[in-house]
Amino acid sequence: MFNHLEIANCNITIVGLGLIGGSMAMALQGLNCANVWAVDINENVLHDAEKSKIISKGYLDPGIPLPKSDIVIMCLYPDLTVKFIKDNICKFRTGTIITDTAGIKSKLINEITAIVGNDLDFIGGHPMAGREGSGYAQAAENMFKGASYIITPTPKNREENILAVEKLVRAIGFKEVVRLDPQVHDQIIAYTSHLPHIIASALINCNQNHTRLIAAGSFKDATRVAIINSKLWSELILSNRINILRQIDGFINSLADFRNAIANNDAQSLITQLEQGRKGKEALMRDEKTGN
Amino acid sequence: MFNHLEIANCNITIVGLGLIGGSMAMALQGLNCANVWAVDINENVLHDAEKSKIISKGYLDPGIPLPKSDIVIMCLYPDLTVKFIKDNICKFRTGTIITDTAGIKSKLINEITAIVGNDLDFIGGHPMAGREGSGYAQAAENMFKGASYIITPTPKNREENILAVEKLVRAIGFKEVVRLDPQVHDQIIAYTSHLPHIIASALINCNQNHTRLIAAGSFKDATRVAIINSKLWSELILSNRINILRQIDGFINSLADFRNAIANNDAQSLITQLEQGRKGKEALMRDEKTGN
Repeated sequence: MFNHLEIANCNITIVGLGLIGGSMAMALQGLNCANVWAVDINENVLHDAEKSKIISKGYLDPGIPLPKSDIVIMCLYPDLTVKFIKDNICKFRTGTIITDTAGIKSKLINEITAIVGNDLDFIGGHPMAGREGSGYAQAAENMFKGASYIITPTPKNREENILAVEKLVRAIGFKEVVRLDPQVHDQIIAYTSHLPHIIASALINCNQNHTRLIAAGSFKDATRVAIINSKLWSELILSNRINILRQIDGFINSLADFRNAIANNDAQSLITQLEQGRKGKEALMRDEKTGN
Repeated sequence: MFNHLEIANCNITIVGLGLIGGSMAMALQGLNCANVWAVDINENVLHDAEKSKIISKGYLDPGIPLPKSDIVIMCLYPDLTVKFIKDNICKFRTGTIITDTAGIKSKLINEITAIVGNDLDFIGGHPMAGREGSGYAQAAENMFKGASYIITPTPKNREENILAVEKLVRAIGFKEVVRLDPQVHDQIIAYTSHLPHIIASALINCNQNHTRLIAAGSFKDATRVAIINSKLWSELILSNRINILRQIDGFINSLADFRNAIANNDAQSLITQLEQGRKGKEALMRDEKTGN
């Protein structure tokens, strides 16, 4: 029902004009969609976005744009995403593609799939992009340039709609689109995103002896994402509890291996572990360069 | 014996023309010292540095430049720093200032102080700068621009010599110079540098499920320094064992607090901990901006 050439004919509604939703709206500007509408509870944000022509029009009442929308992009917290779709299920037009941008997928997709029935197609998505902070004021048109996008389809999704979402995210700047099973997504993301965020906070919290002058680059980088939206991240983390607990335990085991080598003054074991880390990181960086 | 205006009259010898020593030599170029000599075991590196006029002359034999040097900057591994000074103690000119750049201080300073006696003044130093990788090929003239430098004097050092080292490091680009007791240095650095390096390696090692496409920015930053010189870092870590073990234990306790909140589905505790991390990091960043 939708392909790259037809983006110009589409009505797209963004629900939640914050960091991600605002950046989506900005990135959509260049695509000449028929309309880019936004729904938010903050009238000022809608007004600002309208005034700077980032959206065609903003609505406090989702009942106005939803019946005319071809694609709805949910940019809310996970729980609010489910609540919004549930509360407004009757207002969506039959055939609408709904997609989202939440950082956890399995639980959310199960809940939403149970609500939308067969008339709507909900396709989970997760942009591998963002920045410290939150809110529309932090949004940026180029936030997605060159980043990768994960789509987590289920057997219920129609292939043509999955392709449509893939084309849309490529059009707004994402470079690579990866399809993953929702459960596999949550397992991997527990390691590659949730764990590093917890580490950043724990590293700040474990010592009050902070001093900027003696903070090496390694410390600054490891704690960058401690500037966190704690309400959103608490929700993300608790929604992916089991996977994250497993990753924390594995990480503590790795730390314990280092601790043992250090406690035993075992240079050989320490060098072996540091070499393993170096090789793993180098392989990742090689893959980034070669695109593997 | 040496002040900022007299750098032009000084003979400076750099021992070890690697990442730090090479960058020191490059940064010294603009200061019109009488001579910048280098000692290294790698003849090719000395030849390259001579050819590109980064040093006045390079020597395999330290016996040639040491007797004529006003300042000697040691840029070797910690153990090799001690060994070099011990092996060449008779070649230094009386009154020479010796300083070093190793990442641990207490043990090293005790050992060297016992060797140098009263004719030479050894003043410990630690540049808060560097980069992934190692060796002369990675050296860069601007590596120290805006970074801070730690000097770890002891009661034995002469104040005028401490001031001379401070002036020298400011002249090659360091912005702020901090004096710290050697033991306090090692305690703090265990937290702000050694621990983040161990975390980076442990985070790579705890999961073989690496995939560049799903590696969020948080993961990339937290693992940046896993590209490590494992021989040097093994030595640094084992020289600072007791402090590092204490920091690892404190960090694992902080992680365990997160783990408990997640295992108990305790959103309030999780939010409190994430907020503590956010506030700690924000305070650090504020200090960086205001220079406090």
